[in-house]
Amino acid sequence: MPEDTATTGRRDALAQALAAAGIERSADEVEALVQGVAAADVRDRSWLRLILSEAQATGALADRLEELRRTCADAADGIDEPEPAARLAALRAELARRGLDGFVVPLSDEHQGEYVARRAQRLAWLTGFTGSAGMAIVLGERAALFVDGRYVLQAAAQVDGSLYEHRHMTDAPADAWLGKHLSEGAALGYDPALHGTRERDRLAAPCEAAGARLVACEQNPIDVLWADQPPPPLGPIAPHPVRFAGRDASEKREAVAGRLAEKGVDAAILSAPDSIAWLLNVRGADVANSPLPHSFAVVDGDGGVDWFVDARKLLPEVPAHLGNAVRVRPPGALAGVLDRLAGAGKAVLVDEAATPVWMIDRLAEGGAQVVRGADPCALPKACKNEVELAGIRAAHRRDGAALVRFLAWLAAAPPGSVSELDAIDRLAAMRAGGEHYRGPSFDTISGAGPNGAIVHYRVTADSNRTLEPGSLYLVDSGGQYLDGTTDVTRTVAIGRPEPEHRDRFTRVLRGHIALATARFPRGTTGAQLDTLARQFLWQAGLDYDHGTGHGVGAYLNVHESPQRISRLGSAAALAPGMVVSNEPGYYETGAYGIRIENLVTVALADDGDDGFLGFETLTLAPIDRALIEPAMLTDGERAWLDGYHARVAETLAPLLAGDEATLAWLRAATAAL
Amino acid sequence: MPEDTATTGRRDALAQALAAAGIERSADEVEALVQGVAAADVRDRSWLRLILSEAQATGALADRLEELRRTCADAADGIDEPEPAARLAALRAELARRGLDGFVVPLSDEHQGEYVARRAQRLAWLTGFTGSAGMAIVLGERAALFVDGRYVLQAAAQVDGSLYEHRHMTDAPADAWLGKHLSEGAALGYDPALHGTRERDRLAAPCEAAGARLVACEQNPIDVLWADQPPPPLGPIAPHPVRFAGRDASEKREAVAGRLAEKGVDAAILSAPDSIAWLLNVRGADVANSPLPHSFAVVDGDGGVDWFVDARKLLPEVPAHLGNAVRVRPPGALAGVLDRLAGAGKAVLVDEAATPVWMIDRLAEGGAQVVRGADPCALPKACKNEVELAGIRAAHRRDGAALVRFLAWLAAAPPGSVSELDAIDRLAAMRAGGEHYRGPSFDTISGAGPNGAIVHYRVTADSNRTLEPGSLYLVDSGGQYLDGTTDVTRTVAIGRPEPEHRDRFTRVLRGHIALATARFPRGTTGAQLDTLARQFLWQAGLDYDHGTGHGVGAYLNVHESPQRISRLGSAAALAPGMVVSNEPGYYETGAYGIRIENLVTVALADDGDDGFLGFETLTLAPIDRALIEPAMLTDGERAWLDGYHARVAETLAPLLAGDEATLAWLRAATAAL
Repeated sequence: MPEDTATTGRRDALAQALAAAGIERSADEVEALVQGVAAADVRDRSWLRLILSEAQATGALADRLEELRRTCADAADGIDEPEPAARLAALRAELARRGLDGFVVPLSDEHQGEYVARRAQRLAWLTGFTGSAGMAIVLGERAALFVDGRYVLQAAAQVDGSLYEHRHMTDAPADAWLGKHLSEGAALGYDPALHGTRERDRLAAPCEAAGARLVACEQNPIDVLWADQPPPPLGPIAPHPVRFAGRDASEKREAVAGRLAEKGVDAAILSAPDSIAWLLNVRGADVANSPLPHSFAVVDGDGGVDWFVDARKLLPEVPAHLGNAVRVRPPGALAGVLDRLAGAGKAVLVDEAATPVWMIDRLAEGGAQVVRGADPCALPKACKNEVELAGIRAAHRRDGAALVRFLAWLAAAPPGSVSELDAIDRLAAMRAGGEHYRGPSFDTISGAGPNGAIVHYRVTADSNRTLEPGSLYLVDSGGQYLDGTTDVTRTVAIGRPEPEHRDRFTRVLRGHIALATARFPRGTTGAQLDTLARQFLWQAGLDYDHGTGHGVGAYLNVHESPQRISRLGSAAALAPGMVVSNEPGYYETGAYGIRIENLVTVALADDGDDGFLGFETLTLAPIDRALIEPAMLTDGERAWLDGYHARVAETLAPLLAGDEATLAWLRAATAAL
Repeated sequence: MPEDTATTGRRDALAQALAAAGIERSADEVEALVQGVAAADVRDRSWLRLILSEAQATGALADRLEELRRTCADAADGIDEPEPAARLAALRAELARRGLDGFVVPLSDEHQGEYVARRAQRLAWLTGFTGSAGMAIVLGERAALFVDGRYVLQAAAQVDGSLYEHRHMTDAPADAWLGKHLSEGAALGYDPALHGTRERDRLAAPCEAAGARLVACEQNPIDVLWADQPPPPLGPIAPHPVRFAGRDASEKREAVAGRLAEKGVDAAILSAPDSIAWLLNVRGADVANSPLPHSFAVVDGDGGVDWFVDARKLLPEVPAHLGNAVRVRPPGALAGVLDRLAGAGKAVLVDEAATPVWMIDRLAEGGAQVVRGADPCALPKACKNEVELAGIRAAHRRDGAALVRFLAWLAAAPPGSVSELDAIDRLAAMRAGGEHYRGPSFDTISGAGPNGAIVHYRVTADSNRTLEPGSLYLVDSGGQYLDGTTDVTRTVAIGRPEPEHRDRFTRVLRGHIALATARFPRGTTGAQLDTLARQFLWQAGLDYDHGTGHGVGAYLNVHESPQRISRLGSAAALAPGMVVSNEPGYYETGAYGIRIENLVTVALADDGDDGFLGFETLTLAPIDRALIEPAMLTDGERAWLDGYHARVAETLAPLLAGDEATLAWLRAATAAL
C-alpha cells in the first residue's frame, strides 16, 4: 500500500532531518510526528519549515527535506481514490445496521471550521467533493449535497448527480429538503462532535415538523467504514514570538479574563484552534496552509487556561513559553473538566457556532449555567494591534514584490507558452525566498479562460489549460509570513481583451473602488457595505455569487471571523485594525472569470473625525490597465486608481532594485490612466 | 370623573347615531360598543366612519357624530395625567408583595405589534413615554427605559431621568443592562401574554448568566394598579370588499392552507391583527389610525378558521361575509382549542416574533409539535396583488392632490402666520373630503425648526411653534383610504434656506434617488440596500438614526412586516408588489430636521429582465427645489428629479382642475431644475 511505504520513508527522513537540525526526539516521538504528518494534508509543508526555523538548516538538510516533500506528494496521489457509489452504499448499510434512516455529513471537523485535517475530510471521502464549505445528507432513498455559489460548478464536476442531488445551500437549504423527504418516525443521525447547537437546531426543526427524530451518534459511521482513515494530525507547535504578535500571551489572557468577568461567567470554552493560537501566542501545523494547533481549551476567570492538546506536538521550548498559568492536559481530560465545571454549577460561556453539541449538552445536563455568546478571543484577535499591522504591511510589501515579478514574467512570456500549473509554480518560486515566508495561505487558484469562472478552481493535471491570447487569466493566491497573511487576486488580459471583458472588468473595478473609498460610522457591519461593490454590475443586470470580503488573520486563517463583507451578514461591526478582503468579481460560465482582490484594514477616516471609519488598502500590485474602459470611470474613480498605482510603484520599486526588466514593466503597469 | 360623564354622553350619542343610520343594536350591544370606544384611542374616529359607510348618513346624523367626537376628545384630555414617581413606587410595592425583584414592561400588547389599544398602554401609563417602540425594566434600586434612535429626544422630554435611566435600545441593549444589575437569585417578572418567545429568550439569557430567574406573571401587576384602565376595545368590524382586496377571502384561506401543507403542519396560530384582517377581508377599529380587529385565529390545514373575537364587534353583515368555514368563537375559547391541538399531537406553526409565550408554552407542554416559522399570511399580505396596487396608486393620486393643495397654501401664507398645529389642521382638511378617505394613517408629524429634528415629534399645545422665515419645516403624514394607505414626508424651506440646509438636503435627496433608481437581483433584502441611501451623508461624516424604509399595508398598518429597508435587516427578500417607504433624512438637534419620504413598490426592472427588480415610486408631490444644490447632483440624478416632477405635474393637474392658484404653484414647483 502506498501509505505504508510513504510512512516508512518519512520516518527515516524525519529522524535524520531532526538529528541534522539538532532537535532531539525519542523514537516514539518521531513515530508520533510521522503519523501526524501522514494525517495532515500532504500538500502542507509548513511543519517542516517550522522545524527548520528552530535550527540552522544546512544545505544537506534542506535537500533531505525536499526529498521528503516529494515522497509525501507521491504517496498522496495514491491515497483515497474516490469510490462514491460503493461508499454511499456502505454508509446506507451501516445506517440500516444501526436502525438509522439517514445521516448528516458536514464538511466541518470538531473545531467547526473550514480548515480540516485529512482525518476529518469525511465529506470528501464520501462524495468526492473537496471544496471548503458544504454538507451532504444521506437518506435511504435519496441523498443531497449542499454547496454555496462558489462551489456549484466544482460540485457538478466532482460529484455524481445520480448519487447526490446538487442543491444551493442558501437558495434551497437543507431544512427545506429534509422537511420534504423525511418520513414520519424516521431517525436522522448526526455526529454531535461535528455540529454546533445552532446547526443542530436548524436540523432539528424539520425533523420535529416531520415527526422524525434527530439522533446523536456516539461513533461517526464513516469512521467505521473508512479503513485507512488517517489518525489525528500531530503537527509540531512552536511559540509565536511577541515581536510578531505584538502582545504578550499573559496580557491577552488577562484581557480575556476581563471579558469573562464583564459577562459574569466563570469560564469559557475555546474550540476554535485559531483562537487558541492567538491567545497562547503559538502556531501549529495540523492542517494545510494555516498554522493551526488542533486542540481545545478552557479559560477561567483569573486568566488560567487548561489546554487540551497532545503533548507530543509541543516543541521543547513551548512549556517555558506558556508559563505556569497554562496547564497542558491530554485531549481525553476535557470531558472530566466539563463535568467538574457542571458539577460546581459554574456559568460557562460557549460559542454556539463553534462549540460542538456534545460539550454544550454535557455542560447543561451536568448542571452548568450555559451562557451563549461569541468566542471571547474572536474580536480581540480580529482587531490587529499596531505591531501586527506593521508586520502585515511589511508582509504585503514583500508579497507585492513577488507578485510583480510574477506578473512581469507572465507579460514577457511568449504567447501560448504558459499553463495554469506553470503559473502556479512560477508564482510559488517568486514568493519562496521572501523573508519570514512559511508557505501558501491557500492553494493557488490559477484559472485560464473558462476555468477562471470556477470561483474556487483548483487546477489538476487533467484540467490544466494554456493561457491563450484573447482570453482572461485569473490568479488568486496568498502567502503565510511570520508577520502576516496575504491574499490577492489579479485578472490579466492575455493578448488583446474583448469589449465585453473591459465592460465587465470596469464594473467590477468601480465596485472595488466604491468599497475601498467608503466612509461609514462606527457600528457599521460589512453586510451594510456589500452592495456598494455590486451596484454597477446590478445596474447591468449582473452579479457574482460569493461574498465581497472575508476576514483575514495575522499569520493565521485566511478566512477569519467575525468580520466579513457579505449579504449574509455578521453581527460584528467593522472595527479599527480588522483585516478584510475587498474582492468583487464577475463570472461568465464557460468563458471567463474576473476578480479584483485587495486586502484592506479598517482605519479611522482620514480627516480625524473619529466617529467615522474607512479602509486602508494593504495589497500592493498593479491592476491591469488593459482591462479598464476609462470612459466608464468618474473623475474620482480615476483619481483613486492613479493614486493607488503611484503608491504601488513607489513602495515596491526599492524591493525590485536591480531587476531592470521588472522595474520597467512596473513603471508601465502603474502609469496614470 | 371625566371618564364617566364622557361615557354617558357617548352612550346616548351612539345609540341615536345607530338608530338614525338604521343599524339595530340591543342596549347591551350599545353599552359594549361604548365601552369599546372608551378603550380605543380617542383620537381615532375610524369606527364612526365605518358605521356611517354602512348606511346613508343624513346631515343630522353627521352633526350628531361630530358632537360625539368632540365629547370624546374633551374627555380624553382629562384621563391619565402621568404620575410617574408615584406609579413607579406603587409598582415596586406590588412587586415586593409578590416576591419579585423586577418586572419588564414592553410597549407591545398581546399582539406584539406597535399598534396598541389604550388599555394596553402600560408603558405610557407607567413612564409617560408615548413613542411607538420601547421597553422599561424596573428593578428594586433602579429602572431603565430602552428606546431606539427615533425616540431618544422624545424620551428625554417625556421621562424623568432620575426615575429611569435612558438607554439606546441597540447601542446599550436590555440584556447587557440586566446582566450588570440583576443580582444572584433575583426573580424578574414578565407578562407571558406580552412577549414572544424570542424576546423571552433574550431576557432569559442574562438572567441565566446572573443566576437569576425569569418568572411568568399570571396577572400583569400594572393591571392591578391601574385603577381606571380601559376595558378591551370593541371597535366595530366590517367586511373589506373584494373590489379593494383583490382576492376573495376563501381563495386566500385556500392559499394559506397550501402553505401549511408545504410546511407539513396541521394548523397555524395567527396573532397579528393585520394578518387576520387580510385573511378574512375584514377591517376593524380597535386602535387609532389602523383598521385593526384585535383578535386571534387558528387556521387549519383545510383552510378553516377559528376566529377568537368578541362577537359584539361584528357588524350585522359580517357573519354572512365570512361564510361557514370561519367559526366565530369567544376569545376565552382559545386556550381550550390550543389544548385540543396539543392533546392530539398536532404540528402547529407559530411565529416566534408574534405569538405570545403563553400560547407556545401551552402548546408545547400539552404535547403539540411546535413549529417555528413566519406567520403564513405575512408574505402574501406584503406582496400586494394588481387590484390592491391599482387602488394604492389611485389613493396616492388623491393624497398627492391634497398634499399639493396644502403645500401651495403654505407657500402663500404670510410669513410667521402658521403654527405647527395650524398646519396639521389644514392638511387634515385637505385630505378630509377625498374619496374613500377614512382618517390619518398615523398622527401627523409637524415639526418647525428644531422640532423637525425630533424624528417622531408629536406637537402639543405647549410645544407648538410658528414656522419662521429662514427655518425648515418637516411634515410627515399619511391617510387611510379604503383602497390604500399613504405615508409621505416633505421638508420645506420657509423663506430663504441657509447653504448648510441645501447641502444636507441635497445629500439626503441623492440617497433617496440612489434607492429609487436601484436595480437588484431577486433575493435581495432591504438590509442590502440601506447603505445606498446613506452613502452621501457618510462621505461627509453624517448619518441618520432610523431605518431608511418600512413596509406599508393596503388599508392596513402603516408599519408592516416583513419587508423593510434597514441596517437591522430582515430575512425577507424584497419581492414584487411589496410596498415600502424610501425615507432618508438628516437631523441637527436643536436646529432642523430633513426627511424626504416617498412610498415605492417593488417591480420587475423595466427592461424586462425578470431576474432583476427595481422600485416604482408611488407618492406624488413636489420636492422643494429651493433646498436643492444643483451643482451637487450628477446628470443622472438631475434627470430623475426632473422626470419625477414632470410625472407629478402631469398626474395631479387634472385632479386640481379649477384651482388656478394651486395649479400655478404646482407648475413652478415641478419645473425642471
